[in-house]
Amino acid sequence: MIYLDNAATTQMDAKVIDYMHELMHNHYGNPSSIHAYGRQAKVLVENARTKISSLLNVFPAEIFFTSGGTEGINTIINGVLCKPEITKVITSPIEHSAMLNSIKHYSKLYDVELCMLAIDDKGNINLKELATELENHDGKSLVSLMHANNEIGTLLSIKKVGEICKKSNALFLSDTVQTIGKFKNDFSAGYPDFAIGSAHKFHGPKGIGFIYINGNTKVDPIFIGTQERNMRAGTENIFSIAAMAKAMEIAYENMNLVTKKYAELKSYLLEKIKSEIGDIAYNGDIDGLPNLINIAIPKTSSNEMLLMKFDIAGVMVSGGSACSSGALKDSHVIEALGKADKYRAIRIAFSKYTTTEEIDKFIDVLKKSI
Amino acid sequence: MIYLDNAATTQMDAKVIDYMHELMHNHYGNPSSIHAYGRQAKVLVENARTKISSLLNVFPAEIFFTSGGTEGINTIINGVLCKPEITKVITSPIEHSAMLNSIKHYSKLYDVELCMLAIDDKGNINLKELATELENHDGKSLVSLMHANNEIGTLLSIKKVGEICKKSNALFLSDTVQTIGKFKNDFSAGYPDFAIGSAHKFHGPKGIGFIYINGNTKVDPIFIGTQERNMRAGTENIFSIAAMAKAMEIAYENMNLVTKKYAELKSYLLEKIKSEIGDIAYNGDIDGLPNLINIAIPKTSSNEMLLMKFDIAGVMVSGGSACSSGALKDSHVIEALGKADKYRAIRIAFSKYTTTEEIDKFIDVLKKSI
Repeated sequence: MIYLDNAATTQMDAKVIDYMHELMHNHYGNPSSIHAYGRQAKVLVENARTKISSLLNVFPAEIFFTSGGTEGINTIINGVLCKPEITKVITSPIEHSAMLNSIKHYSKLYDVELCMLAIDDKGNINLKELATELENHDGKSLVSLMHANNEIGTLLSIKKVGEICKKSNALFLSDTVQTIGKFKNDFSAGYPDFAIGSAHKFHGPKGIGFIYINGNTKVDPIFIGTQERNMRAGTENIFSIAAMAKAMEIAYENMNLVTKKYAELKSYLLEKIKSEIGDIAYNGDIDGLPNLINIAIPKTSSNEMLLMKFDIAGVMVSGGSACSSGALKDSHVIEALGKADKYRAIRIAFSKYTTTEEIDKFIDVLKKSI
Repeated sequence: MIYLDNAATTQMDAKVIDYMHELMHNHYGNPSSIHAYGRQAKVLVENARTKISSLLNVFPAEIFFTSGGTEGINTIINGVLCKPEITKVITSPIEHSAMLNSIKHYSKLYDVELCMLAIDDKGNINLKELATELENHDGKSLVSLMHANNEIGTLLSIKKVGEICKKSNALFLSDTVQTIGKFKNDFSAGYPDFAIGSAHKFHGPKGIGFIYINGNTKVDPIFIGTQERNMRAGTENIFSIAAMAKAMEIAYENMNLVTKKYAELKSYLLEKIKSEIGDIAYNGDIDGLPNLINIAIPKTSSNEMLLMKFDIAGVMVSGGSACSSGALKDSHVIEALGKADKYRAIRIAFSKYTTTEEIDKFIDVLKKSI
C-alpha cells in the first residue's frame, strides 16, 4: 500500500509511539491535582509547552493545548469575534472548511461583517485589496489567512500580511496547521497574533493540537474552567501533549534533511509526469508547500472514477481535503479557483517516509487512469 | 505511593495501553478519507461506537465522540440553550464546575432563565421542587443533574428525574462521568436525553470522551463540520476512541467483581475509621458512589496543612474536584452543603487496583494528621 495523502494525516513516528507508550505506563495523574502524581503530570504538560514555545521562539505562556486544529480554530474565531470592538472579519474562500465554517457561524452569532478577499488563479490573495479593506473600515478587524493551503500548497507571506495588519491595528490569525514541523516558523516578530498546530500533521498523535496566542492579545475561551490558565477547560491530555512536543522536536531535528528529500521527491515527480505523461496542469502553486502537488486532470466521462482507480491499485491520494471528502462533491478550493467544472484534482502529499518507488507506482496508475 | 484519588483520574489499564500501542503502530488513516487507510480508520471509530452504544443499550447513531467530559458538557449546554424554544435551565449548585461554568456562560449568552434547585444536607435535590419549577414554567426547559456527584458520591435517580422531565416535556441532561463503567446504565427507557462519558475516569486514556444524545433530540454542534455526522468537527482521535471502547468493555466485563471489591473496601475503610479514629462526619451520602467516601474533618489551626501531610506521606487524596483544586479555595460543593466553614473535606476514591493495605496506610496518616 502506498500512502501519498500526508496533508490529510500522517503515520505516527515510531519514536513518538514508544515515548507515549512509556508515559501511559508510568504516569496518570491529573495535572490539576496538587499531590505528587498531579504535579508529575503537570511537569509533563509544562515541559511540552516549553519545548513547543521554544521551537516557535515565543513564550511558554503563549501556547495553549487543544484537542486539535478544529478546536484551535473555533477557540480563536469565537474568542475574538465575541469581543464588541471587533466589527469585521476578513478571510479568503480557500481557507480550510473548518475555518470557513467557524467564521460563518461566529460572524453571524456576534453580528460581525464578513469580507472574502479575491484570489488569483494560484490561490494568492491581493495584498493591496487586504490593505484597502482594512483602511476603509473604521472599527477593528480580524484577518484570517492560512500559511499554506492544505489542498493546493499555495503559501502566504506571514510577514507581509502581518505588517499590513499591524499598520491597521488588525488582529491576524494564520492557520499554520500545514506548516508546523515543515518550516521553522518564528512568531517572535509579533505576527501572526494567533497560529494553530495539529500534531497528526507532523507524525504525532491524533486528537491533540495547540494554539499560539500573542501575549499582548487576550481572547475568551470556548470551554470555561481553570486549566490552561483559564483558556481551555478539561483534564489535560497529558500523554498526547507530551507526544506532540516530541513529534515536533523530531520534525525540527530532521527538518533540513526532510526538506531536501521533499525537494528531490517533488522534482522527481514533476520530471516523471513530464516524461511519462506530458504537459499537465497544476492547481495552486507548485513552488508552494514543499511536500504537496495538486494535479488538474481534464474531466472526461472515462475518468470519473479516477480516485477509485488509485484506491483499487493501492495508491492513496485524495481529491481535496479529507475533512470534506465525505460530502462527495468538488472541493471548495478548486471551485474558488474556477477549475472545478473542467478539472478533477488529485492531491499528492509526501511524508518523510515517501520513496521514489512509491512515486513510480503513482505515475503508473495515473498513466492508466486518465 | 498510594493513589486514592480515582475520582480525579485513573491509571490506564495495561490491556488498554497495549491495545492502543498496537493501533498506533498499525493504523493512521483519517476516517474522512475515502481510500483504504481512511476506511480502516473509519471502521475503528464505528466499531467503538457500536461497542459503547451496545453497552448503554442505545443506538450507535446516538453516540458522538468528544475530547472529554468538559467538551461534552459544553456541546450539550450550548447546543440546547441556543434553541429559541428553550427558555429555562434548571440545575443544582453541586454540579461539576465544568457544568456550572458552561450553564452560566450559555444561559447568559442566549438569555435563558437559570434556576438553582435547593439541596439537602447530603446533596440530594427535592424532586417536588423540580416538578413545581417545571410545571410553573410556560416554555420548554433543560434540566441538568448529575448521576453521581464527583466529590461526595451522592446519587440521583435518573428514572425519577427522567419521568418528571418527560411529564413536563423538559429535556434532561445527566452528567454520568462518574458512573460510566461503574453501573450498567441503560438509557433505552428514553431518559436522560443526554449523558456524558470521559474515558480517563474508567482506566482509559485522557483527552477522549463521548456524549449520548437521544435519537429524538437534535442539538447544534459547537465545532461545525462533517465529522460525527455534522455533530463534532475535527479529525477523529481514532486511537483514543478505540481505546476508550476497550476500557469500557473491560469495565463491564469486570463490573460485578469490582463492585463487590468496592463494597468490601468501603466497609473496611468505615470500620477502620470507627475503630481507629472514632466518630467522624461524612460529606454527602456514604451509600452513594460505591468507590467514594468524603470525610468531614473539623477545622482546627493544627490541621490546616492536612492534604499536604497526606502528600508528604505518599498518600494521594484530594479536598475536592481536581479541576478546581488549582484555585486553592474551598470546594463549591462543600460550600453549598454549608460545611465549608467548619470542616475540611478529604475525598477518597478507590479503583480496581486499590488494596486494604493502602487503606491501612491512609488511616495511619489520618490518625496522625487530624
